[in-house]
Amino acid sequence: MPGSGKSMFSSIARNMGIPVYVMGDVIREEARRRGLEPTPANLNMIARLLREEYGPAVVAERIAEKLREDPSPVVLIDGVRSLVEVEVFEKLGRVVIVAVHASPRTRFERLRRRGRPGDPQTWEEFRQRDLTELGFGLGSVIALADYMLVNEGPATEFKEKARMLLAGLVADGS
Amino acid sequence: MPGSGKSMFSSIARNMGIPVYVMGDVIREEARRRGLEPTPANLNMIARLLREEYGPAVVAERIAEKLREDPSPVVLIDGVRSLVEVEVFEKLGRVVIVAVHASPRTRFERLRRRGRPGDPQTWEEFRQRDLTELGFGLGSVIALADYMLVNEGPATEFKEKARMLLAGLVADGS
Repeated sequence: MPGSGKSMFSSIARNMGIPVYVMGDVIREEARRRGLEPTPANLNMIARLLREEYGPAVVAERIAEKLREDPSPVVLIDGVRSLVEVEVFEKLGRVVIVAVHASPRTRFERLRRRGRPGDPQTWEEFRQRDLTELGFGLGSVIALADYMLVNEGPATEFKEKARMLLAGLVADGS
Repeated sequence: MPGSGKSMFSSIARNMGIPVYVMGDVIREEARRRGLEPTPANLNMIARLLREEYGPAVVAERIAEKLREDPSPVVLIDGVRSLVEVEVFEKLGRVVIVAVHASPRTRFERLRRRGRPGDPQTWEEFRQRDLTELGFGLGSVIALADYMLVNEGPATEFKEKARMLLAGLVADGS
């Protein structure tokens, strides 16, 4: 969910030499291709249009094309939003779902502090954005996570848990 | 999710003197009223019929009727399955969502060992039951949990975490 600490987890993986594929990058690429600025509104529109044109698994399928050319034994895919997407990756190899959880209150405070373009500033905007994410089926992916990392405490604690989990997965998958 | 350790959490609450309302009991009551045996197949059918007749919040609404007569400052509601149900309870007071998480692999092993009537014995049955639960919107409730208790390790560890969390909530709500 937004503000849970998902990108922090990805950065740690990247620093450990694990290739990271970001689902949202597919949308940003498509924006570039269509000559559109990557504003939150444009990216949302493109995400919707892509799914309408090519089906609910389109973003995963575009990542899958890249994965077929990646010889790495373990990769991280950041930002899976539905079980339909998970199924695309299950066709390519073993999938381990890692969810990063923080309470709505904690996530709201983080996003408000972060203040990236498109980040919610009011509780209503925040709730609406959560419901949009859940509308894709993100909750089902979280509920079926193989690993649930809770990120409520200090960042150092979370980073340590993340590194240990990733090291185990790399050892397991290599 | 089935096999996560939800009922263990409820038992601990009960032992601490917190009144526990089990959503599934509404279905069992309805089975009795209709003169049906409480077999898994009958209970599933009644749950579906009730929702078709009275809408998706019917089970929560029947619990809410009982809650209006309960003077306890803190109660536990076991088995909420959708955000529509959460909204019913939010009209009555402050709601704190506690999710109990275990990985699909762990939950499957537990259910297979438990072997209650209706518990899945094959991975396919298990997966199907998970998808039924998620179909109600359970994933969205889990994703928005205020507290995420991970129950992968020994039962003693989980029980201790549960007791600490519940004690804190009682202190907070009383």
